[in-house]
Amino acid sequence: MLNLQEWIEQKLCELNLVERMEDPHGYNRLGYTEEERKSHQQFIRIAKELGLNTYQDRVGNQWAIWNVHKTAPTIALGSHLDTVYNGGGYDGVAGVLSALAAVKILKDNQFTPKKNIAVVCFISEESARFGVSTIGSKAISGELMIEELEGVRDRDGITVKEAVEQMGVKWEDLTDATLPLSRLEQFVELHIEQGRKLQDCHADLGVVTGIARPTRLLVTASGIANHTGTTSMNNRNDALVAIAPLVQYVSELTKHINKQEDPHLVATVSTVDVKPNSMTSIPSKVEFGIDIRSVDDTAKQSLVTKIKQFCKEAEKKHQVKIEVETLVENKSVFLDDTIKSKLLETGHQLGFKTELMVSGAGHDVMNMATRWPSGLLFIPCRDGISHQPKEYTEISNLVNGTKVLTEYLQIEAKQ
Amino acid sequence: MLNLQEWIEQKLCELNLVERMEDPHGYNRLGYTEEERKSHQQFIRIAKELGLNTYQDRVGNQWAIWNVHKTAPTIALGSHLDTVYNGGGYDGVAGVLSALAAVKILKDNQFTPKKNIAVVCFISEESARFGVSTIGSKAISGELMIEELEGVRDRDGITVKEAVEQMGVKWEDLTDATLPLSRLEQFVELHIEQGRKLQDCHADLGVVTGIARPTRLLVTASGIANHTGTTSMNNRNDALVAIAPLVQYVSELTKHINKQEDPHLVATVSTVDVKPNSMTSIPSKVEFGIDIRSVDDTAKQSLVTKIKQFCKEAEKKHQVKIEVETLVENKSVFLDDTIKSKLLETGHQLGFKTELMVSGAGHDVMNMATRWPSGLLFIPCRDGISHQPKEYTEISNLVNGTKVLTEYLQIEAKQ
Repeated sequence: MLNLQEWIEQKLCELNLVERMEDPHGYNRLGYTEEERKSHQQFIRIAKELGLNTYQDRVGNQWAIWNVHKTAPTIALGSHLDTVYNGGGYDGVAGVLSALAAVKILKDNQFTPKKNIAVVCFISEESARFGVSTIGSKAISGELMIEELEGVRDRDGITVKEAVEQMGVKWEDLTDATLPLSRLEQFVELHIEQGRKLQDCHADLGVVTGIARPTRLLVTASGIANHTGTTSMNNRNDALVAIAPLVQYVSELTKHINKQEDPHLVATVSTVDVKPNSMTSIPSKVEFGIDIRSVDDTAKQSLVTKIKQFCKEAEKKHQVKIEVETLVENKSVFLDDTIKSKLLETGHQLGFKTELMVSGAGHDVMNMATRWPSGLLFIPCRDGISHQPKEYTEISNLVNGTKVLTEYLQIEAKQ
Repeated sequence: MLNLQEWIEQKLCELNLVERMEDPHGYNRLGYTEEERKSHQQFIRIAKELGLNTYQDRVGNQWAIWNVHKTAPTIALGSHLDTVYNGGGYDGVAGVLSALAAVKILKDNQFTPKKNIAVVCFISEESARFGVSTIGSKAISGELMIEELEGVRDRDGITVKEAVEQMGVKWEDLTDATLPLSRLEQFVELHIEQGRKLQDCHADLGVVTGIARPTRLLVTASGIANHTGTTSMNNRNDALVAIAPLVQYVSELTKHINKQEDPHLVATVSTVDVKPNSMTSIPSKVEFGIDIRSVDDTAKQSLVTKIKQFCKEAEKKHQVKIEVETLVENKSVFLDDTIKSKLLETGHQLGFKTELMVSGAGHDVMNMATRWPSGLLFIPCRDGISHQPKEYTEISNLVNGTKVLTEYLQIEAKQ
């Protein structure tokens, strides 16, 4: 019989649909695709091996239930199995796998829970395919704005509606899938950190207090396209010259704010679109996409204000029109204090170096937390690298996380 | 019978294949296309009306000849009829049209030249379609590097070879089309300025002393793509943060050099490519295309050296790899002193305010000048706007240019 480490290693490959985990090309299980469905089927198979009942809800989330009694409260654990394009094999899978492993240990130990225990694979967590993240968990938490999905297409021109219906989900169901409050008592997700705080402070585990959600800006500078060879330097309305200094400004100012107050603020000019983008034309239009995150919403807002001031000044200085549009403005999500304390205590009791921290990335739990008491446990992620083939966490980290979830379930479900 | 102004107005429309010149969408006569061929056919028709002999050379340049004698020297005038995507109706057309108009005046005045007079439409002058400019004039001047055309494709995936052969030109001919020296005595081109120097100094005409040809750099910064939300500000290798300050540096330094020495230096970061260009990823790779021009080759070289130094320092400061590749390094072309003086004198004698100036843009004449004594005459271009539908020059400017060419031909061809 396999020991826990071996079982986890085996199931990790099965959920990733591979023989071994070294895949230089990365994993491609985009949301609402055949590949994601295949991974869900592996999940169903493993859940059945563990004696769990499985079912797919109306939006495509896959559930596996250790049913004790219909009227008993249900503790849910889980994460997702979809990936970005050429993604890693741990983002999402780690949470589903450790939840299954915890159930396995409890079953192996002949534990008899007083509450139902559910493991869930949320569908289409990544925004890679449609630009909209956490579709499955949004839908059951009542957080899905169906308008933001309408007409959205993937790279191949397939709409969300078509993709959803190809997977056997009715479009109408997506708009009306909110789970009754009573259906769950609480939700706990385990996830790889996708940052390097745990690695840098040599911690085993992180318990997340809050999730920094993004504010996103689109800054558009509009100048005049003219010939690079014939337009004198003093006679230009170069949109790029006007707006390029914003890149450094955002980076430097964010570092400066962190030094003074440390709101864990991060801000990135991450996308650039230049028109006409021709060697012989002065740039007439430049768009910057800026991603800003902090659990401190005031710090985010103050950075946005300063960016707007900077753009106003650049506009005057360079005789170029600059507009700042807010694409996304999400408030931070704070996780349940009681669950947080219990996870922290469990980590310490099991002898793990466990740190309180914030999450810079969004996860399914941020939607669940709007409706049910929820917690988020991080395991380390090598060099903070994620969303690419090099993404990696040691099996021992998955074992450690599993042990905390097991102990947590044992305490929570024993009465 | 039409007067000169009316004749020019009519032929301007005919060469542009339109009923009138206000086209909000611009003109699309890319090199080696059916549209360019149609414009060449209009040229042939007009040339025949004027009693000229026409023929197409082996690379597709269209010639119209006022033949006096087989052994007489030939003075060539001309320009091109192709445009960029959504280009203007004067760039190129102005030079072909004013050459035809000059011939018309000489014929109307019963002038009997002692030399042959040729008007030429060079094929595929613009680099818009294939990224390679002045193909026709390069080919006959012995300046064409056939390697730079091999495998090159347009937006629709058509190779230069396919395009050339579709127009009935043999690929082999392109490589072996250099015209014998004796075939031409000299070449004069008229072109719209595509800058605003003439407008700003209220001049009627410009006589060009030299053509600033580009040095082009590709600067590549390579950092590490990581999650924008989970990677702390102090733990990034952001390629965009490292290289963005180069935009301002290039602009400011170029202005500074011009203030001190005035080598008419212009430098532009004109293209930007960011990878992965995703809202949630730190830029891992940024490519800047930089276009640098001056008739002072030393000034260009000194700017390149300073850009390389800047990149070395940025590389150290930001822990990002930065490479600078020279894509193009063309030496300036100086035009024939005698022709220049004669054109200037002719302009003055006809009462036009005529200025000596340099050209920041390349023209067919830069190739012709490597083989034959050549001259370039500029007419004003409203607000310096070119390569777009708003490109405009008044008919009176075309009339003025025509008058100078007529007088010049009369002097040059009378003995």
